[in-house]
Amino acid sequence: MTWLDTSYMARKGVSKNKTGATHELTEARQGKYNYVYGPYAKPVLRIRPGDRVIAETQDAFEGAIKTEKDLPSAKLTMPFVNPQCGPIEVEGAEKGDVLCVHIESIEPRGPQPVGTSALIPEFGGLVSNSATAMLNQPLPERVMKYEVTRAGIKFNKSITLPYEPFIGTLGVSPQIEAVSSLQPDYWGGNMDLPDVCPGAVVYFPVNHKDAFLFLGDCHGTQGDGELCGVAVEMPSTTTIRVDLIKNWSIAWPRLENDRFIMTIGSARPMEDAARIAYRELCRWLASDYGFDELEAYFLLTQAGRLRVGNMVDPKYTLGASILKTYLG
Amino acid sequence: MTWLDTSYMARKGVSKNKTGATHELTEARQGKYNYVYGPYAKPVLRIRPGDRVIAETQDAFEGAIKTEKDLPSAKLTMPFVNPQCGPIEVEGAEKGDVLCVHIESIEPRGPQPVGTSALIPEFGGLVSNSATAMLNQPLPERVMKYEVTRAGIKFNKSITLPYEPFIGTLGVSPQIEAVSSLQPDYWGGNMDLPDVCPGAVVYFPVNHKDAFLFLGDCHGTQGDGELCGVAVEMPSTTTIRVDLIKNWSIAWPRLENDRFIMTIGSARPMEDAARIAYRELCRWLASDYGFDELEAYFLLTQAGRLRVGNMVDPKYTLGASILKTYLG
Amino acid sequence: MTWLDTSYMARKGVSKNKTGATHELTEARQGKYNYVYGPYAKPVLRIRPGDRVIAETQDAFEGAIKTEKDLPSAKLTMPFVNPQCGPIEVEGAEKGDVLCVHIESIEPRGPQPVGTSALIPEFGGLVSNSATAMLNQPLPERVMKYEVTRAGIKFNKSITLPYEPFIGTLGVSPQIEAVSSLQPDYWGGNMDLPDVCPGAVVYFPVNHKDAFLFLGDCHGTQGDGELCGVAVEMPSTTTIRVDLIKNWSIAWPRLENDRFIMTIGSARPMEDAARIAYRELCRWLASDYGFDELEAYFLLTQAGRLRVGNMVDPKYTLGASILKTYLG
Amino acid sequence: MTWLDTSYMARKGVSKNKTGATHELTEARQGKYNYVYGPYAKPVLRIRPGDRVIAETQDAFEGAIKTEKDLPSAKLTMPFVNPQCGPIEVEGAEKGDVLCVHIESIEPRGPQPVGTSALIPEFGGLVSNSATAMLNQPLPERVMKYEVTRAGIKFNKSITLPYEPFIGTLGVSPQIEAVSSLQPDYWGGNMDLPDVCPGAVVYFPVNHKDAFLFLGDCHGTQGDGELCGVAVEMPSTTTIRVDLIKNWSIAWPRLENDRFIMTIGSARPMEDAARIAYRELCRWLASDYGFDELEAYFLLTQAGRLRVGNMVDPKYTLGASILKTYLG
Repeated sequence: MTWLDTSYMARKGVSKNKTGATHELTEARQGKYNYVYGPYAKPVLRIRPGDRVIAETQDAFEGAIKTEKDLPSAKLTMPFVNPQCGPIEVEGAEKGDVLCVHIESIEPRGPQPVGTSALIPEFGGLVSNSATAMLNQPLPERVMKYEVTRAGIKFNKSITLPYEPFIGTLGVSPQIEAVSSLQPDYWGGNMDLPDVCPGAVVYFPVNHKDAFLFLGDCHGTQGDGELCGVAVEMPSTTTIRVDLIKNWSIAWPRLENDRFIMTIGSARPMEDAARIAYRELCRWLASDYGFDELEAYFLLTQAGRLRVGNMVDPKYTLGASILKTYLG
Repeated sequence: MTWLDTSYMARKGVSKNKTGATHELTEARQGKYNYVYGPYAKPVLRIRPGDRVIAETQDAFEGAIKTEKDLPSAKLTMPFVNPQCGPIEVEGAEKGDVLCVHIESIEPRGPQPVGTSALIPEFGGLVSNSATAMLNQPLPERVMKYEVTRAGIKFNKSITLPYEPFIGTLGVSPQIEAVSSLQPDYWGGNMDLPDVCPGAVVYFPVNHKDAFLFLGDCHGTQGDGELCGVAVEMPSTTTIRVDLIKNWSIAWPRLENDRFIMTIGSARPMEDAARIAYRELCRWLASDYGFDELEAYFLLTQAGRLRVGNMVDPKYTLGASILKTYLG
Repeated sequence: MTWLDTSYMARKGVSKNKTGATHELTEARQGKYNYVYGPYAKPVLRIRPGDRVIAETQDAFEGAIKTEKDLPSAKLTMPFVNPQCGPIEVEGAEKGDVLCVHIESIEPRGPQPVGTSALIPEFGGLVSNSATAMLNQPLPERVMKYEVTRAGIKFNKSITLPYEPFIGTLGVSPQIEAVSSLQPDYWGGNMDLPDVCPGAVVYFPVNHKDAFLFLGDCHGTQGDGELCGVAVEMPSTTTIRVDLIKNWSIAWPRLENDRFIMTIGSARPMEDAARIAYRELCRWLASDYGFDELEAYFLLTQAGRLRVGNMVDPKYTLGASILKTYLG
Repeated sequence: MTWLDTSYMARKGVSKNKTGATHELTEARQGKYNYVYGPYAKPVLRIRPGDRVIAETQDAFEGAIKTEKDLPSAKLTMPFVNPQCGPIEVEGAEKGDVLCVHIESIEPRGPQPVGTSALIPEFGGLVSNSATAMLNQPLPERVMKYEVTRAGIKFNKSITLPYEPFIGTLGVSPQIEAVSSLQPDYWGGNMDLPDVCPGAVVYFPVNHKDAFLFLGDCHGTQGDGELCGVAVEMPSTTTIRVDLIKNWSIAWPRLENDRFIMTIGSARPMEDAARIAYRELCRWLASDYGFDELEAYFLLTQAGRLRVGNMVDPKYTLGASILKTYLG
């Protein structure tokens, strides 16, 4: 028995912690990828709670940037970026439920160098961009290709970064909106939060019948904030196990691993993302862990942790967490 | 000849400043209203550049708040608020064009008191809300009903506000997204900017074939910022004339009236909306009025004006303007 | 009798609306100018409530930029910019009182072209700067000199802007802090708000014995936001009349003219400045005009106005106002 | 030899890594504590580079909150909070140098329960406050007293938090300003960043002759963001060793420990603090570690870390760091 057997997913999931069928969502089965999170696309797969999905994700550029000479401005056509697998229907999911995603593994897929990063004009955390608009000239465009294996990521001749993969974009459909896969929000989406990695269980509020799960945009690693806006982007083979908790009303995504529970907020300015995340965590401590809300507020003041996912996307994403050791 | 005959719309519009057919978009013809700006709804009307549309808009609550005792939390079902007329197809519109909307008139529609305002829990500019999340208790819910006529708006026994109507939510469909009609963005939407009023011409970047024009959410009047989040909401009979400018690439909505030209930005934090608006205005002065960009930057430093539309919606909206008298 | 005789200053001021002595605060009498608002400088003048002061202010660069070839980076030495007249002691002022400043006139002073504007590296509202730090290269430095007279400001050959002078930096000392004259805050300071102009009465919370009034940084005109950070800076002869209201506790500056009352907030992000200003205005309406706070919240939603002073200083400044016609 | 012998402080410090005299800055020697960081207070101590100081700091309330029944609003008088030891003159320090502070130890001082936290009206990260002003009613005031020893902090009957002390407020005087000890800024001050802990060396830009070092506000532990605004506040005996690096121009505080180098930014909104910190880190990597600035931008995108110090003070503080293992 592992911590996973004590997770919310295991204790409350419809599957009663039993793994069901395994589905392969290959490139061929996916066909056309998606560029919005919404209810208007035709589902590519229908699964049951407890089932496993092995998905072939594309990188954020859908493979268009093949060498360090392929400039993003020439190769990309907005808004057709950050392609997503899905939508995957999950049987029985309804508004007011929670969809659980346990991330089992993420492997790079395709020929080396499989990882891509880039400086894209008017995009990024330390440059004039479409939201924080300035008159300064843009930086030069630049592309970096990285070899990515389990052994590490070759940043340059002298630096190898550890392979710490995670899913950049993961979530469910809004109820009636269809929103760019570049945006994170209460349904998940482009959170770019490194804790969404193998071992974690992520919880999303279901907004639409059958949930409509999407995923894509895997990263070989990423620093806090995803500073230039482009992590180590890579196509992947990603394995997840999906479950469903009925009648659990949450306002924003939550996450659990062996060490902590986390709530995730996405907003601008950044302090609003932190406020959302911390308020949700106060509420979680109050609803499930026997704290009153002000006591939770004190505890998080002394022991809460914040992780900055992205500071570059249409909303910034922060995760607020507390160690399970304090939760009894 | 009026200023209108010298407007961009008149000079560059496909209709060559000729008014075409008049279309009545009644409640009956509209049928179901829309709650997203997007390309997935079925058009209710197809018009040609130069045509006039007379639309019966609903108030932001679709009439659900009939008396001061009808509490919003009991009467409203999210996300089904801020109902929009449309989509209206405009023949010949393509991505890269500009849709022009000249607002001719806005009249209140329905039995008095026809105006509604309200304090809604976790919504508004001076309260803890879903984006700026806090632990404080919400304010009490409260509803105000106002008599609204051309003669004025009865705020209370001693205060009558002038009737200064405008369209709160107006714009075109994004290319592949379908976004809540509560949100303003580069396609227009819920800008809640009082300058979008009779007499003005508003310009929107077309993102989708046939433009897909939406409108709704008329206000009898509104202060800067729409402070509590709910202006004098009213159903209306609104008359607009629509035209099309081919191959004019603009990034954000623009507006023109007899006195000034304006660019409109929507973002959070508020300074980012101001930056967007002012950068667009620099660019407009550079592309069309013979300024170099830095000279425009100086001129706006000394003579630019900012209008705060809303400080309550998912993005805040500001308009930056410059008097036409300075433009030669 | 003018509106001024019905102002707070006239009704509640210690001087009982009687004008006292006139004091000339010439360059010679001022001697060294001040670069901080604080209690540590030696007063240059002691006056009584009701007295008039005629002050010779310097421009924000203390005259160091004499021609369009004098680059700011070569001519300015931080933090010795934005020189201020004062401190002026006001007899009888104590913490918990309000200092009133009626601005009577502002005249340009010195040889033409007397007005200066400039693009300063890493400073301004549409460029990477020390607070919103980016990697983009700075814009080129540039200086503009403008002839400024009562007849107008020669922006260039074809554009003459109206002469609409105001005091950019005006306020009182904090209690124990001494803060850069570049910063606006609850004590006033570098608000760069065009409503602080001849005709207006401005109210400041007194924080320190004898108030310690400072002023400087007059502008010939300025657009909303002071976009590039440098308005039409000019040395001036400025005439003010000062009064004192005992035991009036206000948290932020307030302003009154013949048409409206205004509250002024300074903060970042910009929405926080708007929130401060509007909350103070709610409180003013509740304390002095017979509204309950929620009724005031509704009224400002429908009829409040926002003016953006600056979007470039260490804090952004906004004024929220309401017409006196609504106040009975 | 430890990492410390390879630190900037050891390699570049005037003391040549030799420890000098030890000075005891007791309560008696300090006398009156300081509430501003500025050049106007009389120094209490004069030391040489290399010297050690053992300081008796007060808690942020100067001991005024003795029991859980002592409400902050009754016991505190603004602006006399967050008392600071100092100013300490450091011989030879001049503008353009860097002051180095190695934190050797922090011990709680005084009778148990020595730790204090509190909910203070209109203050804190998840409530309406003086900067993010709202109309909601404040939370109830509440005080918590905690026993703090090296063995841990008794949060309540079932939770003991680890003793992880750090200096909440540490820095040097601005050149001519005197700013509240509640504010963090480029001179350090109230950063509330848990990495400023025993073992770390912190670097500050000297702005004033003899540097004028201040310190105070030690915390027994604190979560990221210091959520309610009041960590485990405690009086302490804190030991630091001070050194001086001549002619090293840095714009913001920097920090070094055995694992990483960090740059520290303080600003609002929060993303501006992140931008400052990351830009400074790009510049540090470029000036001292052989990266070009864009390569540094890429590296931090993949491997940078952000720590949120406070999200409650007049400016928010974030530290951006990179592991030394990547720096060759």
